[in-house]
Amino acid sequence: VSVQGSVKPIGVFDSGLGGLTVVRALGERLPGESIVYLGDTARVPYGTKSADTVARYSLMSAGFLLRKDVRLLLVACNTASASALPRLERELPVPVLGAVEPGASEAVAATRGGQVGVIGTLATVRSEAYLRAIAALDGRVDVVQLACPLFVPLVEEGWLGDGEPLEAEAAYATARRYLGELRRRAPRLDVLVLGCTHYPLLRSLLSRVAGDLWSHEVRLVDSAQAMARRAAQLLPDAQVTGTGALECYVTDEARFSEVGSRFLGRRLTHVEKVDL
Amino acid sequence: VSVQGSVKPIGVFDSGLGGLTVVRALGERLPGESIVYLGDTARVPYGTKSADTVARYSLMSAGFLLRKDVRLLLVACNTASASALPRLERELPVPVLGAVEPGASEAVAATRGGQVGVIGTLATVRSEAYLRAIAALDGRVDVVQLACPLFVPLVEEGWLGDGEPLEAEAAYATARRYLGELRRRAPRLDVLVLGCTHYPLLRSLLSRVAGDLWSHEVRLVDSAQAMARRAAQLLPDAQVTGTGALECYVTDEARFSEVGSRFLGRRLTHVEKVDL
Repeated sequence: VSVQGSVKPIGVFDSGLGGLTVVRALGERLPGESIVYLGDTARVPYGTKSADTVARYSLMSAGFLLRKDVRLLLVACNTASASALPRLERELPVPVLGAVEPGASEAVAATRGGQVGVIGTLATVRSEAYLRAIAALDGRVDVVQLACPLFVPLVEEGWLGDGEPLEAEAAYATARRYLGELRRRAPRLDVLVLGCTHYPLLRSLLSRVAGDLWSHEVRLVDSAQAMARRAAQLLPDAQVTGTGALECYVTDEARFSEVGSRFLGRRLTHVEKVDL
Repeated sequence: VSVQGSVKPIGVFDSGLGGLTVVRALGERLPGESIVYLGDTARVPYGTKSADTVARYSLMSAGFLLRKDVRLLLVACNTASASALPRLERELPVPVLGAVEPGASEAVAATRGGQVGVIGTLATVRSEAYLRAIAALDGRVDVVQLACPLFVPLVEEGWLGDGEPLEAEAAYATARRYLGELRRRAPRLDVLVLGCTHYPLLRSLLSRVAGDLWSHEVRLVDSAQAMARRAAQLLPDAQVTGTGALECYVTDEARFSEVGSRFLGRRLTHVEKVDL
């Protein structure tokens, strides 16, 4: 019996609040599902920590969500997916879905010319998780990665390329600078993977800038949407008449409700601080 | 006996690499001093951690520097200064100099109109350390704080307001947006404290933008320079004929040498990874 009605909830885990874009995508695709979210905000970012430490933190977070009786665990954190997914899959009694493989799979299916771009944090790019995942699916696809360290803080400030003119200008110049570098290194790319859970909020800006830079169409693959689609495939019994309740837990409260509401696209109501 | 010649070195501790701006300022003011630097890069940032955790990490870092036989400890990290300075002062057998008080003291001395602006990270602004330090020095000074979360990642990318046009445009729009808000909230300010060790690299940009926004002169107080000046006062026996050697230790190596050289203004040669 779940904390929210008769069907067990889906668990979503992230090092911070970016994973709320996955919650939002799940809500659009599976509106009846109840979701329990855990953001390990006291220990964010994972990207600067060793693989062992990330695995240990991820197992603690997964343990918390299992005690909430989740029937599926989504690891929305790219670093945790890259460092700890095999171990989580081995040690947990429920199916586990990582952040990298669903987007990689959509990218391989979507490319026509065989060149794919991946943008993400420094840690994600360094992990080469997308390189490996795409190579495992189709060794002929050429993958060009680029780290875009300013995108996460831009999203957390809410500077998304529209609205207040100076905020829009800063966001636009930043996107143009990063994607311009990608254009020089990957002129043929026709798919761009948003390999970070923060990036869906920049989708319309990135789409506009990509349209300016490449003369052919560039399809954006949103890893949060890809995870939600994969989750829907894994859950043929998904609730369509449930309450769709969302419970959020964080290990540190600073700014979570304020910024999190922007990620989620609606107000965060149930947010509780927990010690793991 | 010091590791570097006959006089004990100065220890500088930061959660990351920002404290290298303090090392640079020390080198300009006390060129003969040998310096041992520790950046706790595996656990950066401290700003999101509890005060207890920050104090524990700071004591471990200080312990490492004491084993290097330092005769003065500079805590270049604003968060560590705000959370752990009294405890470090009580428990360490050498003088300890924090990041906040020297800049606060220069700001109070420099203001004519009695309104001072302080910019820093979210954590520094939330700690209200500058508010308290300035109030303790002169209760009549009005302090207006503003968090500028995009400045640290801009500096770490090396987008400082000059050079490549899109990088310069992003940095300029960001500075104009933040200082524009400060201008609206503090039209009378005549001193602006750069309350983060990363910000000295933005000095010329911030000076230009402040000149555009305020019709009277705004004096910038650089907390790294202020710490170096205070250190020189505390060390009347400072070496003027020493080697000025710099040893750097980090708890994680990612990007330290590359980005650190920019902070220091010269190449980092001796960088070693250590476990605390």
